[in-house]
Amino acid sequence: MHLATVTTSAGSSAAVRLDGRWHALPGHDLSALLTSHAAWEPGAELPDARPLLPLPRPGKVICCGLNYGDHITETGRETPTHPTLFAKYADTLTGPDDDITLPTGLEVDWEAELAVVVGRELRSATPAEAGDAIAGYTVANDLSVRDWQRRTLQWFQGKAWDATTPIGPVVVTPDELDPVAGVEVICRVNGVERQRGNTSTLVFDSATLLSYVSTFTTLRPGDLVLTGTPGGVGMGMDPPTYLADGDLVETEIPGIGTLTNIVRLTD
Amino acid sequence: MHLATVTTSAGSSAAVRLDGRWHALPGHDLSALLTSHAAWEPGAELPDARPLLPLPRPGKVICCGLNYGDHITETGRETPTHPTLFAKYADTLTGPDDDITLPTGLEVDWEAELAVVVGRELRSATPAEAGDAIAGYTVANDLSVRDWQRRTLQWFQGKAWDATTPIGPVVVTPDELDPVAGVEVICRVNGVERQRGNTSTLVFDSATLLSYVSTFTTLRPGDLVLTGTPGGVGMGMDPPTYLADGDLVETEIPGIGTLTNIVRLTD
Repeated sequence: MHLATVTTSAGSSAAVRLDGRWHALPGHDLSALLTSHAAWEPGAELPDARPLLPLPRPGKVICCGLNYGDHITETGRETPTHPTLFAKYADTLTGPDDDITLPTGLEVDWEAELAVVVGRELRSATPAEAGDAIAGYTVANDLSVRDWQRRTLQWFQGKAWDATTPIGPVVVTPDELDPVAGVEVICRVNGVERQRGNTSTLVFDSATLLSYVSTFTTLRPGDLVLTGTPGGVGMGMDPPTYLADGDLVETEIPGIGTLTNIVRLTD
Repeated sequence: MHLATVTTSAGSSAAVRLDGRWHALPGHDLSALLTSHAAWEPGAELPDARPLLPLPRPGKVICCGLNYGDHITETGRETPTHPTLFAKYADTLTGPDDDITLPTGLEVDWEAELAVVVGRELRSATPAEAGDAIAGYTVANDLSVRDWQRRTLQWFQGKAWDATTPIGPVVVTPDELDPVAGVEVICRVNGVERQRGNTSTLVFDSATLLSYVSTFTTLRPGDLVLTGTPGGVGMGMDPPTYLADGDLVETEIPGIGTLTNIVRLTD
């Protein structure tokens, strides 16, 4: 099943895609739908629907770094025994085809990722319980301001610029997508493929990450966990290469869809 | 002025202390009061009021590490050129006299801190603008699970255990407290003083921190910025010393008040 938060002439709505057409679901957005736990039937067709940021106000957006072998190698580190986690806020997120606006002069890099959408409250959950609580999967680009990320030991200030992490375009339910079996995670910049990884090579899979996080904090419906980026980021290129004003970043996971974002660097 | 969120027989309320007595203010808590921007007059006296977590649901809780010279020295690091920042979520916070419950077997350490309460929306603010937007100051203890903090490069998983960062008991407005001139930040464990620093020695003061954060993300009324801890934490002792079940942690800033929290380590 493909779920989304869509814009229509009547405002935003949760929606489900059936035979290629969007139908209304209860709630203004997917977060509301997931939180309500109500049974639902597809409503009226929404002929003019366009997917927005699917989870507009998650309480938590927790990211795992260093989770693909090739990306770990390009950063010169060793395979970790525990997931490296950092936090974002809802303000960091933006829509699947929104422009990404930042000041000029920053080292702006791409990080294509699979994102996991939490469907049920989780605390001290086993990996099996965590797996059962996954509402679905979506695409993310953990766009990173590398010079700020490197200023100190903690990455947060390079990872939390407002409206720089595109998410979407849809959330695909686990019955249709199995990241453990493997899905491709791809990033293209101006049409040139820069990243291609497969989630079957993740050090920590989705259920393991949700279980681990739930050891110390509560995850709730609509929260997001980003599973890390494969090799091929700009800072790993020789010489390091960053995004320029007007660059087109496409982030694709076949079976989910593609984020299409233009970078706008302004004075 | 001393502001708080208090519990009363009629539920929670924002409140102001006048001549040692709490009087009702509009709003269920200080976050609601700060967000409303409404003019207010003190209401009825609340004879049975007891301060709770003053800002129960801040959108952002951003912490600065390594901000006092003596703590930087005890961690073996150099004076930073930029503030080291990491994020917490509202779930991490707890009340000024709440027990702090964690599983046994963790290395639980204390970190007394001055916390700044944001009073107005800030984005790309100068330090002067940021200083004018400070609603007040309160006391925090950035209780840290050191073994989890050290598991990976990113501190988040040692800093974000639910209900482990006590905040309060009151918020003191800037006309009554000047951390640049200097206030003492003190931590006692079972009555023994372990930390005593002075905010006049902060590398990055409150206004500088808010301005810096506002470069990359929006701060809103009720958000918190924790300014770092002085020397004297348990991991800096020889041998390193951590909190045990039943330990009493008192975190004091004269002019604001004292957090009084008992640590409960459970199987």
